[in-house]
Amino acid sequence: MEGKKETSSKCVVLLMLIICICSILVNILFAVRVYVAGVDGLGELSWSRKAAEQAEAVAAISCSGHGRAYLDGIILDGEKPICECNPCYGGLDCSHFLPNCSADAESGDPYFLEPFWMQNAESSAILVSGWHRMGYSFLYDQSYISKVLENHIRKLHGIVGNAITSGRYIIFGAGSAQLLNAAVHALSPSNASSPPAKVFVSIPFYSLYESQTEFFDSKNYNFEGDTRLWKNESHGNDTSLLIEFVTSPNNPDGKLNKAVLNGTNARAIYDRVYYWPHYTAIPAPADEDIMVFSISKLTGHAGSRFGWAVIKDEGVFERMTTYLATNTMGVSRDTQLRALKLINTMLKGRKGRDIFEFGYQKMSDRWKKLSQTLSVSTRFSLQKIEDQYCRFFDKVIKPSPAYAWVKCEREEDKDCYEVLKAANITGREGSVYGAENRYVRLALIRSQDDFDLLLKRLNNLVSKEEEEEEEEKIKTM
Amino acid sequence: MEGKKETSSKCVVLLMLIICICSILVNILFAVRVYVAGVDGLGELSWSRKAAEQAEAVAAISCSGHGRAYLDGIILDGEKPICECNPCYGGLDCSHFLPNCSADAESGDPYFLEPFWMQNAESSAILVSGWHRMGYSFLYDQSYISKVLENHIRKLHGIVGNAITSGRYIIFGAGSAQLLNAAVHALSPSNASSPPAKVFVSIPFYSLYESQTEFFDSKNYNFEGDTRLWKNESHGNDTSLLIEFVTSPNNPDGKLNKAVLNGTNARAIYDRVYYWPHYTAIPAPADEDIMVFSISKLTGHAGSRFGWAVIKDEGVFERMTTYLATNTMGVSRDTQLRALKLINTMLKGRKGRDIFEFGYQKMSDRWKKLSQTLSVSTRFSLQKIEDQYCRFFDKVIKPSPAYAWVKCEREEDKDCYEVLKAANITGREGSVYGAENRYVRLALIRSQDDFDLLLKRLNNLVSKEEEEEEEEKIKTM
Repeated sequence: MEGKKETSSKCVVLLMLIICICSILVNILFAVRVYVAGVDGLGELSWSRKAAEQAEAVAAISCSGHGRAYLDGIILDGEKPICECNPCYGGLDCSHFLPNCSADAESGDPYFLEPFWMQNAESSAILVSGWHRMGYSFLYDQSYISKVLENHIRKLHGIVGNAITSGRYIIFGAGSAQLLNAAVHALSPSNASSPPAKVFVSIPFYSLYESQTEFFDSKNYNFEGDTRLWKNESHGNDTSLLIEFVTSPNNPDGKLNKAVLNGTNARAIYDRVYYWPHYTAIPAPADEDIMVFSISKLTGHAGSRFGWAVIKDEGVFERMTTYLATNTMGVSRDTQLRALKLINTMLKGRKGRDIFEFGYQKMSDRWKKLSQTLSVSTRFSLQKIEDQYCRFFDKVIKPSPAYAWVKCEREEDKDCYEVLKAANITGREGSVYGAENRYVRLALIRSQDDFDLLLKRLNNLVSKEEEEEEEEKIKTM
Repeated sequence: MEGKKETSSKCVVLLMLIICICSILVNILFAVRVYVAGVDGLGELSWSRKAAEQAEAVAAISCSGHGRAYLDGIILDGEKPICECNPCYGGLDCSHFLPNCSADAESGDPYFLEPFWMQNAESSAILVSGWHRMGYSFLYDQSYISKVLENHIRKLHGIVGNAITSGRYIIFGAGSAQLLNAAVHALSPSNASSPPAKVFVSIPFYSLYESQTEFFDSKNYNFEGDTRLWKNESHGNDTSLLIEFVTSPNNPDGKLNKAVLNGTNARAIYDRVYYWPHYTAIPAPADEDIMVFSISKLTGHAGSRFGWAVIKDEGVFERMTTYLATNTMGVSRDTQLRALKLINTMLKGRKGRDIFEFGYQKMSDRWKKLSQTLSVSTRFSLQKIEDQYCRFFDKVIKPSPAYAWVKCEREEDKDCYEVLKAANITGREGSVYGAENRYVRLALIRSQDDFDLLLKRLNNLVSKEEEEEEEEKIKTM
């Protein structure tokens, strides 16, 4: 009995010892966790925690991979913002495909880069405090421009090798749009004694150049249309200043355009927003007098409205600065903070290789698929782009343009937009670019959903073409 | 021996039992902590945590109460951003007062509201994800304008009672600056057959009206100067459209101005950016054809560049919308998110009472102190503002203007700016407002440091005046 009692007592002690050790081990684990949380960063968050939680809660809303919810989305059920669906998807969670919906290849919304930022969620997030940059100026130099962001931009150009910025001025604008008109204004004569400047661009061109120059209806400049038309005429003693918009790579056709107008009275504004390794090989750094860039096509943040111009001449820089101050008092400091964080994330990601490899991979893959689809067609043709050596990737790369510039080759297909529209594809008419309506621009930089549907519809169209030709053959046999 | 052994064994068991219970209790505490963290919000943060930590780390940088550090500040030591100091403070932590520095009362940086946002840090913080609103348009209605923000603005006007928005259009701009020119553009004739519109304003006026209208140098409008000058002349058959800027409360003198030009060919653009309970009693809701507001003076976020116009006429709204699209493709969606959060915080704070009580308290206190200081002076006088009934506070309130419009009364003090400059006070010359240089504007909406120094310097100046008068008396005795 005595022995049994002793054994059972030992058992109890042993059991308690095990429980005790286990409990202490669990405690140590908890303690380590708390310690790690304390060392890793600042430990417990206070005022910023709620905002972080809200952002994660919104990001966690499932939109079936065909849409996303935003912090400032419409709230229907009093609890969480609605899903905002990609074109051709609907339903509360965007899971419902709308079968008869037209494939959207119209506007250049650069959603193709959205997955990159989702993959880099941690490094690209910003928490903005309620008192962030309330004043008009950056306190350290009383300007409207973040010096830190300017330095990031110079660094980025250096790494990519797409523009010389050393010894150049940099000015910010609300996207390229504001900077383009600021540049026209800065180049134009400001005294009534000089004739107004004549503004030109080569067909096909981005329509904003024309609409903007005409809309603001200044005494100092007039839009005059196509450069080549002007060059083929004789102009005798016309000493007007000539301003030429040059888009390189060009929107819509991706060509690395150069200025057509020369001479002492000719000035060029280079729109370089597509001159990044996503869309083109970078053969050499650009070094024009005025070069305009934007994050819309670089990081994909069109909605942020942020761009910059690299400028050689101090006088032009100063007039553009006055334009920006008079028009909007510079660019939103919130937007400058966002652009800084995005470019910072890009620079951190293997010195830009992460984002440009992602972007180039996606765009060249889309171009390859599109080319393959249209290669069997005699009805539709694509612009030709050659393989080219790229300084950034240090190799010859395949084409990866932002847009397809499609031509309807059949005599009767004079309105190519309508031909595609009938096949449930929405592009943008050639006439918007000053060209014939035999051309249509298809945006390739949109979401994967949009591109997939576009490709599917094009495939259908091309197979129908083959069937028709078969039938035609049989008929004529 | 046997008994002793048994006792000591019991002791060990007891001890172990205590340790075991303690350890389990600690375990329960840890577990509860984890559970609470899990229930309270989302529990553990993932991708958003680092951004939140960075924001808190920057907010924790001590700048001695005379400056603040920002996320996008310049980084000198490779670790944390520098302190950006208020005027007249220097040193790495802004603790160094620069004794001979001029009191800054020049620009209208609305830092007086900064402490409010620091007090409301949690509710006003936003975490912006890397993929927030990348596209050009809000997906739910394909516009450049956040419907949710628009509704917040309508709600705010309803609560404050300062503007009728029901049945009116609302458009956003980059601060009031962009909207003012958009409005001039929208009102002006767009066909060459009509004469250009004539643009007027009453002296004293905010200089941007003149500089902007002249700078953009449109074929469709010309700046013509003072309304009263025009009204006193006869204009026979002049059928030009007349556009009048009306600032109410006025910058610089705080008067609740009304349009001076009447008749069928007169249009008014009401700049209502100061029509908030911080700066004026709200006698009745404003209901003009075009009213411009901004967050610069409402929430104090001048750097965010966000404003809106409330518009009666659909045609004017549409032309302004085209202006915004052509100029900048709308307002940065990042800025719209920020404005939404700020206005949301205002609405949550006892339906606006929190911020407006804070703002009114501060501004009326500053005015009271300034008035007291200058009341003993015969050399300097201030504009007169009467106590008035305010609908929002539902009582008669004291004056609380954004600016002091100071007049130098002595015959020889023709350049009042220089008189104050000599006393180490920087205001803004009357001539900037189209007035005599006998006037100077002093900004009262800046940081507490700036106001305190301004008051101190003014006190010195006024005491010297008294001494001088004493001396004068003794001399003439």
